[in-house]
Parts: sequence; C-alpha cells; structure tokens
Amino acid sequence: MSGKVYIVGGGPGDPGLITVKGLKVLRQADVVLYDRLISPELLREIRNGAELIYVGKERGEAEIQEGINALLLKKARMGLTVVRLKGGDPYVFGRGEEECLFLIERGVECEVIPGVTSAIAGPAYAGIPVTSRWYSSGFSVVTGQRADGSAMDLDYIPKKGTVVLLMSVSRVEEVAENLMKVRSERTPVAVIEKATTEGQRVLTCTLRELAKTVREHNVTSPALIVVGEVVELRNKLWKFK
Amino acid sequence: MSGKVYIVGGGPGDPGLITVKGLKVLRQADVVLYDRLISPELLREIRNGAELIYVGKERGEAEIQEGINALLLKKARMGLTVVRLKGGDPYVFGRGEEECLFLIERGVECEVIPGVTSAIAGPAYAGIPVTSRWYSSGFSVVTGQRADGSAMDLDYIPKKGTVVLLMSVSRVEEVAENLMKVRSERTPVAVIEKATTEGQRVLTCTLRELAKTVREHNVTSPALIVVGEVVELRNKLWKFK
Repeated sequence: MSGKVYIVGGGPGDPGLITVKGLKVLRQADVVLYDRLISPELLREIRNGAELIYVGKERGEAEIQEGINALLLKKARMGLTVVRLKGGDPYVFGRGEEECLFLIERGVECEVIPGVTSAIAGPAYAGIPVTSRWYSSGFSVVTGQRADGSAMDLDYIPKKGTVVLLMSVSRVEEVAENLMKVRSERTPVAVIEKATTEGQRVLTCTLRELAKTVREHNVTSPALIVVGEVVELRNKLWKFK
Repeated sequence: MSGKVYIVGGGPGDPGLITVKGLKVLRQADVVLYDRLISPELLREIRNGAELIYVGKERGEAEIQEGINALLLKKARMGLTVVRLKGGDPYVFGRGEEECLFLIERGVECEVIPGVTSAIAGPAYAGIPVTSRWYSSGFSVVTGQRADGSAMDLDYIPKKGTVVLLMSVSRVEEVAENLMKVRSERTPVAVIEKATTEGQRVLTCTLRELAKTVREHNVTSPALIVVGEVVELRNKLWKFK
C-alpha cells in the first residue's frame, strides 16, 4: 500500500502565510522534500523523527526535476506520508502539476494544497493591491524565464491591467524592452526583493528606468516586478508598514 | 488610542485554506466584520465574547461599502482589535484597498493579511493548474462585473495564457461573446461553482458552449470560469479528487 504525497504551497516567504491545512499535513509528514526558498521556521514544524530532504533547485533544471519525481515515488512506495513543500503556490510556476501527474500515473495518491502566491502577497506587503476599483480591474502573472529557456512572450501581456513578473530580474533588460512595446515607458513599476520576508526591499521607478534600477541596486532573485498604475497606491497604503 | 484593523483574506471556501497568521488574528479579535461567503467553520474560531457582524454585501454597492467603512472606523476608535474577514484575498477584487485607505487617512492602523485566492485554488481543487510547462506560461485574472457596472474590457485579456474570470456567470453571454473575439471558440473551458467547498461543482465545455452550459446547469454565484488549454489537464489530475 503506497503512502500519499501532499504537494503543499508554503506561501511567499512569511511563514505565517502558510495555510492551516498545509501546516497540518507538514506536521504529520514522515518525510518532507523542500525547496530553496522555504522559511527555516516552517521546517521547524516537522515532527521528531521525520526526514527532511533539501531538493532546492534552480527552476527549469530537468534532470533535478526527474530526481525529485523519483524520490517522491520511492518514499511514497515505502508507505510514507510525504510532503513536497514548495514556495508560493504549487500551480503558479511551481511544476506541481508535473510532480502530481508523475505520481498519479504510477498509482500514487497525490493531493495539492494551494498556497498564497508571492505574485499577490508580495505586492500586498509592499502596499500595492494587484486590483483596484480606481486603477485596474484585472491582473496578469507571467514569467520572464520560460521553461524552454526562451524569452518572454508578449502575447501573454494584455494591453491593460496590472502585470506581475516572476523570475524576471536576471533578464530584466530584455523584459523591460519587451514590455515597452505594449505599455507606456512612464508606467509605474515596483521591484520587490525577498517579498514578505524580514529582508523585503522595495524599489519604485518607471518602466523606462526598470532595468537601470534593478542593476544599480543589485536586485537579486527572488524578486518580483509589478507593472501598472496600482503601484501609485503604495504611497498611500504604506504608512504603517 | 485607536485599535487596529486587520483586513484578512479568509481564503476561497475550504476553511483549511485560511493562513496561519489570518487565523491567529481572527482568534484575537474583539470584533469581526464578515462577508457573505465566509465559511461558518471560520466564524466558530472567534473567542468567547467577541462581536460578530455580518456585512455580506453584493459587491459594488457603494452605500453598503460606506457603511462598512464607517463601522470599521467606529470600532477601531473604541480601541478594539477589529478583523475585517473577506473571502479570497483582500486585494483581488476584494475592495481591501478602499477600506484600508479609508482607515489610514483617518489615522487608524490597518494591516492587510493576504489570503489564498479562489482564482488559483478554485482551479487547483478542480484538477486544473493555472500555469503549466506544457500549456501556459502565464495567467490573467479578470472580472466580468466591473465596479462601474460596465461590461468586461477586452483589453485585459491577453492573446495567450490561462484566463480566470471571477463574478462572471450572471453576464456569461456577454462575457463569452467578448472572449470569442480574442480566443478560439474551441478553447477548453471549466466552470467551477462553490470552488473548494463541499458543494463544489465542475462543468467543462468549449468556449462556444460556455453560455449554454452555464444556463442549462443553472450555475449560480459564486462561480469562476477558467479558459485555456490547462483545462485539459483536469482529466489526468482529477483521479483522486
């Protein structure tokens, strides 16, 4: 009898933003496979004797992903309760669907527990709502680093609404240049490094200044970029943060 | 000395999807103002003697919103710890920014605690990842019911990527007709009613059949509509749900 695998969204960084359900299964796990960006505070929640395995990968590395899949399968087939703890939400560029599908096809029960995504909570902690009655009745979340290694595809960027870019700072020149083909260079932009953690840093500028700002301030991954008028609200909503 | 207001995302429906931080402040609150779609299980978490106020409004009703703002302000000025408990995430069409801004401008401390949005968790519970290495490197979340009462704005819909429509079933004919201007009528679509709750119901069809499907099956609010190739993954990922 196989064990069960829970693919759990650990949330954006602040350990308090894991879900109650996610924390519950984390505390019950026999073995936990966790990513690079998981808060140490969450890892302290595992029970005595549970096995903790670091599988922190740079996203997109296929071989490492195969290794993770194989390990999840092995542990589940030992009859263990396995938690695969991921940053953010498993289905927002988290490859949760790959892991889940791999397991299901091999007869292993797999449940995905959603998490708070940094794409929404990151801006929120910086005083920026992704939607606003005044500024934006929609938002888009895209990555500047696609699974096949290619550049961003402008067809994913609508003409209007907030755009949140994940995994984009390493290619920020290309990303900014592309965005300026469909959005005004005067569009307000925020760059949020280490969103929702103690080390969160927020920089604001215009789309035209984006690449320069990222480079001058040595912004490093993980960071997200918010593009749109909603960034203006930060000046008002940030008072107490 | 004013109290503090926490604007808390209660999550998409499943009470286990509230965040640990959100649940903690809910349990500490002196007074809780809650919306229509909040799970009764969450409301049972409040402490003995705390005041529970139902402010369930149909979204977009300005007068009711003014009343909520005034009530939050009044309770905070009484020195109380106030929780404003909202469905989903406060900044995803939740008017959290309006309430927060209203309070901050009047000198009341206000903190937003993000929640899991139904726009991501709803599809996940239906076996649909909003992004996928195979199908979609981005997603957009839009509403079919804008604050000014106007129809959806197609400029919020990109050419590619998953589209999640919230608050759109009451105007589904108009929404579907608009979407078919920018997406193929053969695009797979899922309609998810009461997402992540015990009563969740999922219907799948093509974009061309969307309006007919919603009407024939008497889909009612709250429901969300997912448009895109990722809907196909449901057939594979749904095995155990």
